[in-house]
Amino acid sequence: MSLTLYGYWRSTASYRVRIALNLKGVEYQYVPVHLVNEGGQQHSAPYKQLNPAQLVPTLVDDDEDIILNQSLAIIEYLDERFPSPYQLIPSHKTERARVRALAQDIACDTQPLSNLRVLNQLKSEYSAEQDSVNRWAAHWITLSFDAIEKRLQTQAGKYCFDFDVTMADLCLVPQVYNAHRFDVDMTRYPLIQKITDNCNALPAFEKALPENQIDSVL
Amino acid sequence: MSLTLYGYWRSTASYRVRIALNLKGVEYQYVPVHLVNEGGQQHSAPYKQLNPAQLVPTLVDDDEDIILNQSLAIIEYLDERFPSPYQLIPSHKTERARVRALAQDIACDTQPLSNLRVLNQLKSEYSAEQDSVNRWAAHWITLSFDAIEKRLQTQAGKYCFDFDVTMADLCLVPQVYNAHRFDVDMTRYPLIQKITDNCNALPAFEKALPENQIDSVL
Repeated sequence: MSLTLYGYWRSTASYRVRIALNLKGVEYQYVPVHLVNEGGQQHSAPYKQLNPAQLVPTLVDDDEDIILNQSLAIIEYLDERFPSPYQLIPSHKTERARVRALAQDIACDTQPLSNLRVLNQLKSEYSAEQDSVNRWAAHWITLSFDAIEKRLQTQAGKYCFDFDVTMADLCLVPQVYNAHRFDVDMTRYPLIQKITDNCNALPAFEKALPENQIDSVL
Repeated sequence: MSLTLYGYWRSTASYRVRIALNLKGVEYQYVPVHLVNEGGQQHSAPYKQLNPAQLVPTLVDDDEDIILNQSLAIIEYLDERFPSPYQLIPSHKTERARVRALAQDIACDTQPLSNLRVLNQLKSEYSAEQDSVNRWAAHWITLSFDAIEKRLQTQAGKYCFDFDVTMADLCLVPQVYNAHRFDVDMTRYPLIQKITDNCNALPAFEKALPENQIDSVL
């Protein structure tokens, strides 16, 4: 098998890539990297060789001899390597740009702020309690979803952009999963919720759910 | 003039886009959005219309009738709209992927954690002093640069990727500017520093420096 994904069941960045692989219908080996056990397996010497940033996910494509980190870079790579049956980045330059921007609204301005390592740093640096770090995470997700809900009013159809699943949906759905963990009030976001429900009705999204991974702990 | 960039002199995301516009040699109107004055002009009603996330930068391209946020989405858009004289994203799919991943190492995992709004939130939520938030910012930049310095050892030439300026350099150079603000020890990063010096010798980078903008305050 050519493709190996190193990930973690509850990492939303890993979750995005799993959806992409499922939509593309390509087989891959999934290697769990436990972000908590053993002081965090992402800090082990062999994993650091693969990914010096010590974060998940990492995709290894043996056929192309590439080791790649960063979920959005991986998704665009998969989209170029396996152009069918779904195109996750549209062909027209203004549409491509808007899909990338919405994906980055989540991947740059939302998810990194409620990452496990950031919440741990708040605890160690500012003696923040669990309640407080949950509020911290919910604050940034709420700010972000307020803006995304507005953007979607002008562009959404069944999915974030009309009637095709794009990279933006692959970022939105895992972020909504995370929002539930931090008790974000999703009734404020009817469009985000509708799109998430539409996506989750697709087998590729369902198969990628954290609880459906071999390393899930419930 | 078709292109308008809404930005802030010291925003590293705005700085990335300025470099791209300069490398492409396209004229643009620069509209400063002061992130501090008047409670933050990014929160004003007219700006919120342009960008509901209330962040900079935003690019408006009247000819294509597009309003675009997110610096990396903007840079890829500019690269597709103005393919010459420099191509900021290489043509081959594995090279493109590696450039995007390095750009996202900064745009997703580094810069958002030392953003003004995040440092302000640390102050208001945890009564963090300026020294403490500076250490917070330096912590994430150091973690990130440790990994990037390692990656560069296998791929760098004059710039991040061999001998062509790419989107990765457009992210790295502003992040180094920010590292200096937070007293990160740059002697640990000889490759990052060399590449930054090589980039800053180019007029497109020099013209994009924060202190060379009409809204700079020194």
